Amino acid sequence: MKIIKGNFIFSKTSDTLEYLKDYYLILKKNKIIEFRDKIEDIQEEYTLYDYERKMIIPSFYDMHLHAPQYKMKGLGMDKELIDWLNDYTFKEESKFSDFKYSEKIYDDFCRELIKQGTFNIVVYSTIHKDTTEILFNKLKEYGINAYVGKVNMDRNSPNFLQENTINSIKETEELIIEHKDDPQVKPIITPRFAPTSSAKLLKELGELAIKYNIPVQSHLSENPGEVEWVKNLYPKSPNYSTVYYENNLFGQTKTLMAHCIYVSDEGKKLMKDNKIIAVHCPSSNLNLSSGMMKVREFLDLGIDIYLGSDIGAGDTLSMREIIKLTIQISKLVFRNNSHKPISLEEAFYMATKAPGVFFDKKESFEKGKELNALVIDDEYFDLDLKERLSKFIYNGDDRNIYARYLNSKLL
Amino acid sequence: MKIIKGNFIFSKTSDTLEYLKDYYLILKKNKIIEFRDKIEDIQEEYTLYDYERKMIIPSFYDMHLHAPQYKMKGLGMDKELIDWLNDYTFKEESKFSDFKYSEKIYDDFCRELIKQGTFNIVVYSTIHKDTTEILFNKLKEYGINAYVGKVNMDRNSPNFLQENTINSIKETEELIIEHKDDPQVKPIITPRFAPTSSAKLLKELGELAIKYNIPVQSHLSENPGEVEWVKNLYPKSPNYSTVYYENNLFGQTKTLMAHCIYVSDEGKKLMKDNKIIAVHCPSSNLNLSSGMMKVREFLDLGIDIYLGSDIGAGDTLSMREIIKLTIQISKLVFRNNSHKPISLEEAFYMATKAPGVFFDKKESFEKGKELNALVIDDEYFDLDLKERLSKFIYNGDDRNIYARYLNSKLL
Repeated sequence: MKIIKGNFIFSKTSDTLEYLKDYYLILKKNKIIEFRDKIEDIQEEYTLYDYERKMIIPSFYDMHLHAPQYKMKGLGMDKELIDWLNDYTFKEESKFSDFKYSEKIYDDFCRELIKQGTFNIVVYSTIHKDTTEILFNKLKEYGINAYVGKVNMDRNSPNFLQENTINSIKETEELIIEHKDDPQVKPIITPRFAPTSSAKLLKELGELAIKYNIPVQSHLSENPGEVEWVKNLYPKSPNYSTVYYENNLFGQTKTLMAHCIYVSDEGKKLMKDNKIIAVHCPSSNLNLSSGMMKVREFLDLGIDIYLGSDIGAGDTLSMREIIKLTIQISKLVFRNNSHKPISLEEAFYMATKAPGVFFDKKESFEKGKELNALVIDDEYFDLDLKERLSKFIYNGDDRNIYARYLNSKLL
Repeated sequence: MKIIKGNFIFSKTSDTLEYLKDYYLILKKNKIIEFRDKIEDIQEEYTLYDYERKMIIPSFYDMHLHAPQYKMKGLGMDKELIDWLNDYTFKEESKFSDFKYSEKIYDDFCRELIKQGTFNIVVYSTIHKDTTEILFNKLKEYGINAYVGKVNMDRNSPNFLQENTINSIKETEELIIEHKDDPQVKPIITPRFAPTSSAKLLKELGELAIKYNIPVQSHLSENPGEVEWVKNLYPKSPNYSTVYYENNLFGQTKTLMAHCIYVSDEGKKLMKDNKIIAVHCPSSNLNLSSGMMKVREFLDLGIDIYLGSDIGAGDTLSMREIIKLTIQISKLVFRNNSHKPISLEEAFYMATKAPGVFFDKKESFEKGKELNALVIDDEYFDLDLKERLSKFIYNGDDRNIYARYLNSKLL
């Protein structure tokens, strides 16, 4: 038995936090048993990990990001989406036909995730099956819980980064069969976005999703130019969301849609009715001039919001930064549209608790689950826990992460 | 004679950068003599500081910030300006009647400036003359070039943070006389903002500015509520800018006005005609829900823009972060108002070069001047210098600052 002592902070509801000052967390066989305010009456043998006045918070979830873009984050930031894809991203992703390069970047990527305290991710690789395997294996090696999506794209991309439709489906199915029963790193169906998938590819990916009950991720309404393009490519679909919906890629299995800045009212209704989760990526939305997602509007409609770093368009893997940006951008939406800003409590919930259900484990310090936690060190002992958490979110960095518990193991 | 070798990057114009790869900078008696691409023909004795493939950039200017708010940055971020002032800031600033507290916070503040590579600042203290002296001295001790403004406020603030008008003027004049001839840390006239100054106080501060030819700083049109308040307080003034202008606090001497989000067209004309410099504080503008400054519009009107961290409403002293935010927020303004976004080159100029004239020294690696520079270490030797700089601005932090030259001294 292990007992961990410190100041525990975690989401109680979607907009309130629990603060347990000087509490003890009891771990038995690596599962959370309970929180206690004293341990004098415990008979069993235990090891005490005393973090004294430090804060202990859940680790972060990053629900939309591109592992092969790890190195290029911070580059091409003078472009909008489509130019950024063509001028930078597709070139970088084409390098992932190379084993050695993939091995190096995916290793760097995993190390940075651990450093930043992100232990659960839903990630894109590239079109390359073989090096997608490297990403699966690296994540397993590091202990990171993940869904990995081999990207599918069979049109509107350069020849060096385009698949044959039949092969794309075949390789995707092979990866699904190989990884679907893994308890830690699983597959997810990942058409890059409607413009780079033929109707046939979308249709067959939807069939795979249903056949194996595999979740789906893609991009939706990120940029005005992209929305216009989709309208031209799919003139018969009433809106962008319908393109995915008609192909069984929109809620028929669990579905994540990133960005959702320019979703029409009908599109939002389709999201709501089909329990689509919108992934908000504020760093990326700034860097590619995409615009401001109206997070409050989605919440008010009852659509769940998770957060994503979206590297390489986003410039950081720090979900602390993404929480901060979520709050900040919501204040501009407030100024423009009078929507109530997103509170720290709400953004914290989106990054540390809400996505638990997607992983079939609610990991924010719940009984019976493994512990994924960060021990946060600071110097502000004269402030209360609410203020100390605010200072970590606004002023902190990875140097404040004193210790990490990943699937109950102290790293 | 000292010779510094590396890859030098600095502003050539307001929107272009010079990249000098594998160059040598010659320093003689601590003054910059010239850049050279070779040194074989140099006869004189010299010491070579070889930074190999590292980048060398100018240090940063922070042209609007509040030193006494150093500790409280990251707190009260759920408030707008006026509530934030009343609920957090005024309470914190009242602690600066205490010598020991001031000594501690101002020392932490200076150390963090050095760590972040900011060597030139224009800063607010509090209303307290004695502890403002501590800030003057601390900055001198650390070698930081600065203008320090003792804050003047004689109304609309709590009793514990309010001055008697006569005393406010007397103490301000004493500080001016004592520090105006200091080559490194100088005084600046600093009415907090129109709402907390009586008409009499503003008038007499303007007289002091002219009498001693001292520059002026204040806040202008940061928040819609504040603008409305000023309208009510000064019903005879046609706009907010006029309140300062009529009191000789608007261009009669060099003048910095922070925020400038809600300046009317007449106000902008008055700014332009009186060579007012607008200080853009994007972190603060986000955190206090203030809104988006339309930087491009000011530039197009010919109004100079500098950048400020504006701690503690801003949450970081890193001007690298402020450069990044300047670019990012300008992309949202582009999306809303079609104004061309601010480029990295432009934001870099605002934070490392433009403010040189305010200090009567153009410090961005100009001949005859002292060297204020940061040696930036990274690992991206396969990228070109433009890309490496972009990665530092977007992904870097103070750990990338390998060495610092402050007034030509290696720290």
